[in-house]
Amino acid sequence: MYRNHTCGELRAADINKEVTLAGWVQKVRDKGFMVWVDLRDRYGITQLIFDEERTPKEVFEKAGSLGREYVIRVTGEVIERESKNKNIPTGEIEILVKELTILNEAATPPFTIEDDTDGGEDLRMKYRYLDIRRNPVKNKLIFRSQVAMQVRNYLANEGFIEVETPYLIKSTPEGARDFVVPSRMNEGQFYALPQSPQTFKQLLMVGGMDKYFQIVKCFRDEDLRADRQPEFTQIDCEMAFVDQEDILNTFEGLTRHLIKTLKGIDTGEFPRMTYDEAMRRYGNDKPDIRFGMEFGELNAVAQHKEFKVFNEAELVIGIAVPGAASYTRKEIDKLIDWVKRPQVGALGMVYVKCNEDGTFKSSVDKFYDEEDLAKWAEATGAKPGDLICILSGDAGKVRPQLSALRMEMAERLGLRDPKVFAPLWVVDFPLLEWDEETERYHAMHHPFTSPKTEDIAKLETDPGAVRANAYDLVLNGNEIGGGSIRIFDKALQSLMFKHLGFSEEEAREQFGFLMDAFQYGAPPHGGIAFGFDRLTAILGGQESIRDYIAFPKNNAGRDVMIDAPASLDDQQLEELHISLR
Amino acid sequence: MYRNHTCGELRAADINKEVTLAGWVQKVRDKGFMVWVDLRDRYGITQLIFDEERTPKEVFEKAGSLGREYVIRVTGEVIERESKNKNIPTGEIEILVKELTILNEAATPPFTIEDDTDGGEDLRMKYRYLDIRRNPVKNKLIFRSQVAMQVRNYLANEGFIEVETPYLIKSTPEGARDFVVPSRMNEGQFYALPQSPQTFKQLLMVGGMDKYFQIVKCFRDEDLRADRQPEFTQIDCEMAFVDQEDILNTFEGLTRHLIKTLKGIDTGEFPRMTYDEAMRRYGNDKPDIRFGMEFGELNAVAQHKEFKVFNEAELVIGIAVPGAASYTRKEIDKLIDWVKRPQVGALGMVYVKCNEDGTFKSSVDKFYDEEDLAKWAEATGAKPGDLICILSGDAGKVRPQLSALRMEMAERLGLRDPKVFAPLWVVDFPLLEWDEETERYHAMHHPFTSPKTEDIAKLETDPGAVRANAYDLVLNGNEIGGGSIRIFDKALQSLMFKHLGFSEEEAREQFGFLMDAFQYGAPPHGGIAFGFDRLTAILGGQESIRDYIAFPKNNAGRDVMIDAPASLDDQQLEELHISLR
Repeated sequence: MYRNHTCGELRAADINKEVTLAGWVQKVRDKGFMVWVDLRDRYGITQLIFDEERTPKEVFEKAGSLGREYVIRVTGEVIERESKNKNIPTGEIEILVKELTILNEAATPPFTIEDDTDGGEDLRMKYRYLDIRRNPVKNKLIFRSQVAMQVRNYLANEGFIEVETPYLIKSTPEGARDFVVPSRMNEGQFYALPQSPQTFKQLLMVGGMDKYFQIVKCFRDEDLRADRQPEFTQIDCEMAFVDQEDILNTFEGLTRHLIKTLKGIDTGEFPRMTYDEAMRRYGNDKPDIRFGMEFGELNAVAQHKEFKVFNEAELVIGIAVPGAASYTRKEIDKLIDWVKRPQVGALGMVYVKCNEDGTFKSSVDKFYDEEDLAKWAEATGAKPGDLICILSGDAGKVRPQLSALRMEMAERLGLRDPKVFAPLWVVDFPLLEWDEETERYHAMHHPFTSPKTEDIAKLETDPGAVRANAYDLVLNGNEIGGGSIRIFDKALQSLMFKHLGFSEEEAREQFGFLMDAFQYGAPPHGGIAFGFDRLTAILGGQESIRDYIAFPKNNAGRDVMIDAPASLDDQQLEELHISLR
Repeated sequence: MYRNHTCGELRAADINKEVTLAGWVQKVRDKGFMVWVDLRDRYGITQLIFDEERTPKEVFEKAGSLGREYVIRVTGEVIERESKNKNIPTGEIEILVKELTILNEAATPPFTIEDDTDGGEDLRMKYRYLDIRRNPVKNKLIFRSQVAMQVRNYLANEGFIEVETPYLIKSTPEGARDFVVPSRMNEGQFYALPQSPQTFKQLLMVGGMDKYFQIVKCFRDEDLRADRQPEFTQIDCEMAFVDQEDILNTFEGLTRHLIKTLKGIDTGEFPRMTYDEAMRRYGNDKPDIRFGMEFGELNAVAQHKEFKVFNEAELVIGIAVPGAASYTRKEIDKLIDWVKRPQVGALGMVYVKCNEDGTFKSSVDKFYDEEDLAKWAEATGAKPGDLICILSGDAGKVRPQLSALRMEMAERLGLRDPKVFAPLWVVDFPLLEWDEETERYHAMHHPFTSPKTEDIAKLETDPGAVRANAYDLVLNGNEIGGGSIRIFDKALQSLMFKHLGFSEEEAREQFGFLMDAFQYGAPPHGGIAFGFDRLTAILGGQESIRDYIAFPKNNAGRDVMIDAPASLDDQQLEELHISLR
C-alpha cells in the first residue's frame, strides 16, 4: 500500500490521524534540528515535518538526503501546523513523519517544477513529462478532459450516438494533404489518414443513425505552425431530418452548456449575423464582439469633396478607438506605420481626433470642415476623447486591413479579455469562391454544401452571389465550429458539380462512393465540426492550443518528445516495397 | 421542420393529435382503396394509413407510388388502430395521413432492410450504410456507444483523467508491425502509428497524472483475420502509487459496473487464479469458467500399469463430459478424429464411459480394471452417464489439446451461453518466454513488466520460473484485458535488459526515451489495457467483433466500403519522395 490519502486531502479535522502519503519532493527546508518537506502529487501539496526530537533518528537523517523530485512514501501523524498557510487547502496541518521510504531518486530536473518555472518553452517541450508535473500544464490537461466529458454528456442526453469511424481509409485523388500509409500486406497499396470523417458521417446519416457525434483525431500533412498540428481533434457531428435552424439551436445549446458548466457564465442566446453583415460591420467573418469599434461606412459623408484618395476609393471606412484622442503625433505616426506593415498592407490612414470640447482635429482638415467631421463621428459612433481611424480602397482589401487595426487597438486597450465569452453565429456564407489560380469557382466549404433554395437560380447568372446553408460558430474572434446543410438531392448535386467544373467522370472518381449511397434514400441532413483543441484553449482562457495538448509537436514537428519522424532503414523500406527517390 | 415526433414515440395517449413524422418507407401494403405504409427511423416504426375516402386525392395517389426505402415526410392525425400490433410500442396507433412529401426516392436496395435480411455478409459489408439501417446492426452500434459512455463515467468518477496521446509517433526500430507514415514536409522521414500508447501512458505517470485512461485507436500492420482488424480500439489505463491489488480492484469495479448497468447482472467478486492453476485446471490461460469439465490429473492412477502410452507420457489428463456416455461407438470415433485434426494435434484419445449402473466401459479395458477406472472417475469428477476423455503426452502439448476438446464439448452441449458472464483474473504470469527461433528469453508482456520481488533471485538460476506482476482479465474464455505493474527502478530495469539479451546500446536505442524520463523520479505504477472491440462484442452477446464496428475492414482489408488501400499515382509518390521498388 503506497498511500491512504492524497497530498491534497488532509484538513484540520484529520489531526491526530496516522496517515500514509506518497508523492514527489517539491521542496526541502533544512534547519538542522528540523526538516520541512513539501510533498506533491496531482491533488495538492502537504507539508511534512521531520523533527530531531520527535522523529526516529534514521528517518530524520534520511530526510536530510532528500532532493527535489525524489519519489517518497511517508507515514506519520497529522498535526496542527504552527504557521498556517492560507494559500493552500492543506495549509492548516502538517505530517510529523515516523517512517520514510525513498521509492525513487531523481536527477536534478532541467527546470524547476513550479507554477512559474525557469524553463523556456523548448526545454519544457523536450521534457514535457516534467512540464506536466507543473500545475498550469496539469490543470489544462484536466480541463481538456472535462470539456470532452461535458460534450459527451450533453450530446448523449440529446440522443446523439458516438460512432467510431475508420482511421485507415481510402486515399482520395484530391487528397494532396492526406497522410498516406503504405500497407505491408498489399504491395504498392496505400491507406490514407482522414482529414475529417465527413464522408463517413454522411454515410451514417444514409444509414439512419439520425444523430451522430464523435470526438476524433484528424490529420493534415502540411506546414506546422504554432497553432496548427499535423494531428488535431475534432468534435464531429451530423443530424438527419434537420434544417439549419435545428442545427444552430442544438449546438448553441451545447456551447452554452459548456460555458455555463465549465466557466459558470450564462451567455444568453447567441447573436446571429450574416456573412455580409459580419464583413460590413467588422471586416471579418469571425468577428470578435467582446468589444465595439464597429466599422462606420463613410462613403456618403467623405466622398465628393476635394480629397482625391477617398473619391477614388471603392470604400471609405473607419472605427472610433475609445479614448485614443490623446495619442501624440508620434504615437499616431507609429500607428500609421503599423497599418502600412506588409502583414496589414494599408497604404495610409486618415485620423480624426475627437476632442473633449466637441471640436475635431484631423489629418485631412484641408478638405473637410467641422460639420463633415461631425458626420464621420456620427457614422463611426465616436465620442469626445475617441480617435477615428479611417482606411480607404478596394472593399476586399480595406475591410481586412481595418479589421486588423480594430483587433490591434482592442488588444492595446485590454478589450480582448479571455474571461469574457462572446459567441455568435455567422450564417449565409457564400457557396462558391473564385479561385484566381485555377480560374474557376470552388466550394467554400465542400461540394456537398447546399445552396439557399432561393439562390439556386443565380448559380447560372451570378454564382458568386449564391448563399449557402453554411454557418460558423465564432467565439471571441475565433472560428470554433463550422458546418452546413448538405445536398441530398441527386439533381441538385449534379448541378453543383457542373458549376464546380467537375466532369461527370471526375465527380464519380472523387465522390462516387457517397453518390452511390445517396441513391438508396438519403435523408435531409447537416452537421457541424468543432475544433476541439481551439475550443478548449479558448474556454480555458488561452489562445495557444499547444498548451492543452499532452504531447504536442513543435513547429518543425520533429524534435518534440518521441513524436519525431524517424528514418526507416533499408530493410524496413524493402519490407514496405518502397524506396526513397 | 421535418418532424415533431420520431417514429418510435406515439402511443394511445397521443390519439387525435396532429403530428409530422419523417423516415424511410419500410413496407407498403396497397389494398386499392387503402394503403398502409410502415414508416421507419432510428427510434422505431409507425404505421401510416392512406384511405381513399379520408385522404386527399393527390396524397392518396402519391402513396401508391411509394417504394421501399423512399424518404418521406407526412403530416396527419394520430388515430386508434383497428388491428393492434402488440409486438411494437407504437402498435396501438396509426397516422391518418393528410400531407405527404417525398423527400428522396430510393433505388431498390440490394438486400431487404429487415431484421432477418436476405443479404449475405459480403453484400451487407459492401453496402454497410444500408446494413446499418437494420435493427440488429444499428442496435450493436448504439450498444457500443453505451459501453464507451459507461466506461468513461465510471473512470471519471474514480478520478481518472482522459488524456489524448499522439497518433503520429516515432517509429521504433523493433516496430516490424508498425504502420509507417511518410512525412511530406520532412523528406525521407516517417512517422509510425502506435500499436498502443504504452510509452506515453508511462510518461504521463512520470508526469504525475496519477490516474490516466483513454479510449483510443491502435494500429497493427499484420494479416487480417475475421476478428483482427488493422485498426482496433483499446481502453488504455495506467495508475501511479499502486500495487497489483489496487489495479485488480479498480478494474474489477469497472467491469462489474459494465455488466451490472448494461446487462443487469451482478457477477459478484471475480475469482482469481494463477497462471499455473489455470493451465493445470483448464489447460488455458484464458479459461472459460461458465462450465466445469475441469482437468483431472491421472498420472498417479493411470501410470505404472501395463499401458505403455500412459507410462511414457509426461502428463495424463482427462475431462468428464456430462451425459456423453450415451455416445455411440461411431460418435466416439468421430470425436477421436476431431482431436487428431492438425488444428488440435492429439495422437489419440482414451475414453471411459461411466454407465448409469455405476460400471465402466473404456477403450483400455485390457489394461485397467473397474477399480482403476473408478479412481479416474473420481479424479475427473465424472458421474454416471458421463464420458471421460483422456489425452496424454508432453504437458505443453496435451494441455492445449484437452482445452480445445473441452471447449468443443461445451459448445456441443450448449454450455457457452452468451447471456452468462463468468469473469476471472488470471495472475502471476511467467515473466519470460523462451523463443526457439532466437534462442533467447523474451518478455511475455513487455520489457517494463516487473518480476515478483521474491522471484528476482531466480532471474539468474531459473529465468523461466520467474513470475511477473502481470494479470489478464478473462471473460467467457476471452482475454478482455491485460496489464502489469511496471519496473520503475533503474537497477532492476538494467538487470531485466541484460536477461532479455539487450546490450546497453540496444536498450538505449529502443527504450532510451523512457529510460531518460525515469531518471527524474518515476513513481511506482502499473496499468491495464482492454480490447474494447472484443469487450463490447462479448457484453453484447456475440463473439464477432466486426458486427460492433461501424465500418469494418473485411478479411482482405481491401474492399469493404471506402476503406480500401488505393494506389497512389506517380505524381503523388514523387511528392512523398518515395517510389515503389
